[in-house]
Amino acid sequence: MSELKTAITPRRDQDFPEWYQQVVRAADMAEASDVRGCMVIKPWGYGLWENIQHQLDAKFKATGHKNAYFPLFIPISYLEKEAAHVEGFAKECAVVTHHRLEVGPDGKMRPAPGAELTEPLVVRPTSETIIGATYAKWVQSYRDLPILINQWANVVRWEMRPRVFLRTAEFLWQEGHTAHETREEAIEETEKMLGVYAEFAREHLAVPVYCGEKSESERFPGAEKTLCIEAMVQDRKAIQAGTSHFLGQNFAKASGIQFQSREGRQEHAWTTSWGVSTRLIGTLIMAHADDDGMILPPRVAPTQVVILPVTPKPDTREAVLEAAHKLAAEIRAQAFHGAPITVEVDTRDLGGGVKSWEWIKKGAPVRIEIGPRDLAQGTVALTRRDKGPKEKAFVPAAGVAEQIPQTLQEIQDALYARALAYRDENTKPIDTREDFYAFFTPKNAEKPEIHGGFANSHWCGNPKCEETIKTDLRVTIRCIPFDAKEEEGKCVVCGAPSAKRVLWAKSY
Amino acid sequence: MSELKTAITPRRDQDFPEWYQQVVRAADMAEASDVRGCMVIKPWGYGLWENIQHQLDAKFKATGHKNAYFPLFIPISYLEKEAAHVEGFAKECAVVTHHRLEVGPDGKMRPAPGAELTEPLVVRPTSETIIGATYAKWVQSYRDLPILINQWANVVRWEMRPRVFLRTAEFLWQEGHTAHETREEAIEETEKMLGVYAEFAREHLAVPVYCGEKSESERFPGAEKTLCIEAMVQDRKAIQAGTSHFLGQNFAKASGIQFQSREGRQEHAWTTSWGVSTRLIGTLIMAHADDDGMILPPRVAPTQVVILPVTPKPDTREAVLEAAHKLAAEIRAQAFHGAPITVEVDTRDLGGGVKSWEWIKKGAPVRIEIGPRDLAQGTVALTRRDKGPKEKAFVPAAGVAEQIPQTLQEIQDALYARALAYRDENTKPIDTREDFYAFFTPKNAEKPEIHGGFANSHWCGNPKCEETIKTDLRVTIRCIPFDAKEEEGKCVVCGAPSAKRVLWAKSY
Repeated sequence: MSELKTAITPRRDQDFPEWYQQVVRAADMAEASDVRGCMVIKPWGYGLWENIQHQLDAKFKATGHKNAYFPLFIPISYLEKEAAHVEGFAKECAVVTHHRLEVGPDGKMRPAPGAELTEPLVVRPTSETIIGATYAKWVQSYRDLPILINQWANVVRWEMRPRVFLRTAEFLWQEGHTAHETREEAIEETEKMLGVYAEFAREHLAVPVYCGEKSESERFPGAEKTLCIEAMVQDRKAIQAGTSHFLGQNFAKASGIQFQSREGRQEHAWTTSWGVSTRLIGTLIMAHADDDGMILPPRVAPTQVVILPVTPKPDTREAVLEAAHKLAAEIRAQAFHGAPITVEVDTRDLGGGVKSWEWIKKGAPVRIEIGPRDLAQGTVALTRRDKGPKEKAFVPAAGVAEQIPQTLQEIQDALYARALAYRDENTKPIDTREDFYAFFTPKNAEKPEIHGGFANSHWCGNPKCEETIKTDLRVTIRCIPFDAKEEEGKCVVCGAPSAKRVLWAKSY
Repeated sequence: MSELKTAITPRRDQDFPEWYQQVVRAADMAEASDVRGCMVIKPWGYGLWENIQHQLDAKFKATGHKNAYFPLFIPISYLEKEAAHVEGFAKECAVVTHHRLEVGPDGKMRPAPGAELTEPLVVRPTSETIIGATYAKWVQSYRDLPILINQWANVVRWEMRPRVFLRTAEFLWQEGHTAHETREEAIEETEKMLGVYAEFAREHLAVPVYCGEKSESERFPGAEKTLCIEAMVQDRKAIQAGTSHFLGQNFAKASGIQFQSREGRQEHAWTTSWGVSTRLIGTLIMAHADDDGMILPPRVAPTQVVILPVTPKPDTREAVLEAAHKLAAEIRAQAFHGAPITVEVDTRDLGGGVKSWEWIKKGAPVRIEIGPRDLAQGTVALTRRDKGPKEKAFVPAAGVAEQIPQTLQEIQDALYARALAYRDENTKPIDTREDFYAFFTPKNAEKPEIHGGFANSHWCGNPKCEETIKTDLRVTIRCIPFDAKEEEGKCVVCGAPSAKRVLWAKSY
């Protein structure tokens, strides 16, 4: 086999979508299953999801939320209660119609004709309607509010063009569902939870995000406002990494969530919902991975430090393994952001190069090699995944454990800084329609190359202008940023007056 | 309203099934949903499940397992691959037949006729077949074995007579699925995981269990051996609290999990599967609750200590609340089994009696009242949920926090001791058919009273004897205990020679 320049083929700049699939495979994070559109999340990918779960869950609890669990199935009639909602989800629903199998005339199993459901059930694409029906029973008085509940669950949205972690028929997520006494309180909750997501993305995933509101055309079906965090990945496209919806009284009216107010009136509650999903894993990959594979931010890496014992000769093997396990124990005794550092000693009987490259491709933040020579010299060889594979630091073994928390934080910060620099470099204020079209048009139309970015351009607020751009360029408004400053300008599409710039991009 | 003697009506001895439902309701743990057979797990019930999850998960990881996630849907043809398996589950499968809704001629939503699946999908009742198909791709050589994976998931088994936590159409569980090189190793795994369940039941849930093997008629469909832990609840019936299956090569053959052995031969792997579910919550309730509501073992209680500030007068209110929060912080700084103690200060604007009884019914292990008089005297009033509601201990406020871990352990131990004594009292060696029938026949046939227990009786090994007893008494062999000693005896049914006693009981 000839020496490859990178561990992943093709490289990002050659074929970004294919590079993505190859990183997922090389990092052993997930694979397509035989069930159309459904993925198998493998231990390395699931370990990452578990960390995301635990860390987000702690933030939800710290903001007063509790977890609960609601049914997987939703009667069709529930979905129908909110017109925009059913319209939004009807085309991608998995529908359960029977509750038994039987042997058919051809000797094969089939849904038993005698076991047809009187009302078909939809596998939840999201749970506003079923949870709303439940809250309607729980809420009588203003004293029963607020309800602050989150659910960790699987959901199903039938996908015609599935792509692992990004668009799959089944995915894992959390969905917060809250009900409040006043409009103001519900809006405050919607904003607070978007803030939790933004902080989590920045500090845990090392992914910088823009926070803002969606335009009407991109809103959640049935919502009054959809807030979102938008990240840029390495092909300069946007990915919506989390959303928080202010649902007004729409779902409360549809589900009958009513309460007696402090003034003794019957009123409808104000509700919110907010969620992030396994799509975050796709975001992480596209934001941080390089042409050698995954690069995991230390805070969410399933294994933060990998120790690779180098045992070329039987007579030094014991001593090397002992030193490796001793170092592992010392590192595990260290804490990183309040949790013990996770360490794996890879003692598998494989060549050192093969093992090392496996961990590079998986994106483990720190690799430490210990061999007989290191033992003799009292050193170890430390490699950071955010640096080149050959940039080994030979450091004294004594004190290396104590230094690991700082090294992990440096990697975490470096990943964030790199992603931020990339995003900022590729976010451009664009003021003319001509420049705008040029920005989003690949120079070489044949290759799926990397181009464009975020255009920070004026918009008059007319959905027709959005529509034009979507049709012409497949570019959409990703958000109207919270921090967009008021300024006089002209809509980049039609030239009408505009008071602020919004973010435009191609997106996942 | 007249003074009730107990918080729960009816009492256990009056109507055990109805008492159970009322405890679930009074403890605010779960409720039936509008979706047939599906439950809503409310925050107090789900908090309990989260603790069960985290604690079991740590044990799985300590025994070398990793989590992963497999598809919710299983193609019918997969289920068919193992004959006994499909036979066992076909009658209770939710079947997805369409992937889109559309508006029908009556203006209502219906499954779109044009979106029928070519092969219907079953919502997983258990995942042996879909996971087997995946393992078949992962395993080529003995070097790829063992695979030690667990999944936390929802599963669906259509239930005609649902009962919250005990039998619901959808429930939450974990399913471990492992593949091994040899029969011996797979059997060892099967036994090891049953041991994990037994230890968890005893030490975390305070539920004593018998460990043993199922007779053939009670085996998991497709398994070669099913091991189980069986608990006795307070109507003296048995409940299977966890199972671990040795699947032999059945599923490996059905799914094609093959590997090249150390000797270079193609061989089928040996697999296991093992699971516990939200049924454990039903077990906990029936094992520990009393006529005043739930009693939670401290190790799994969502809130271990509740502080109830008593604030009769506005002028002392501030001082009482301050003392309550200070005590809460002191108790949270204490650890119980390696985790910070969970404390809630209930500051709701409700009468003290109402609040106190809410927490009694929820089963919080320790309640602490602090009022103005306590402040003056430097005491608090501590009540243990395993003792009577009036058995308050007035203890010095100084040092109470430090004493809580021991108090929690005492409660944990007391619950176990009580459950063990109850079980042992109601486990009888029975040697004649007449005594056996008498044991399992209620004295008063009209009332659903508490009777019977575990009969420890000889069995010749003939399935016909089991069948007779099942038909006559609705009693089954719960397990052939691992520790049953070899002795000469006669089958309690037919009188044929028998080498050991087995455990018989009515069951959930």
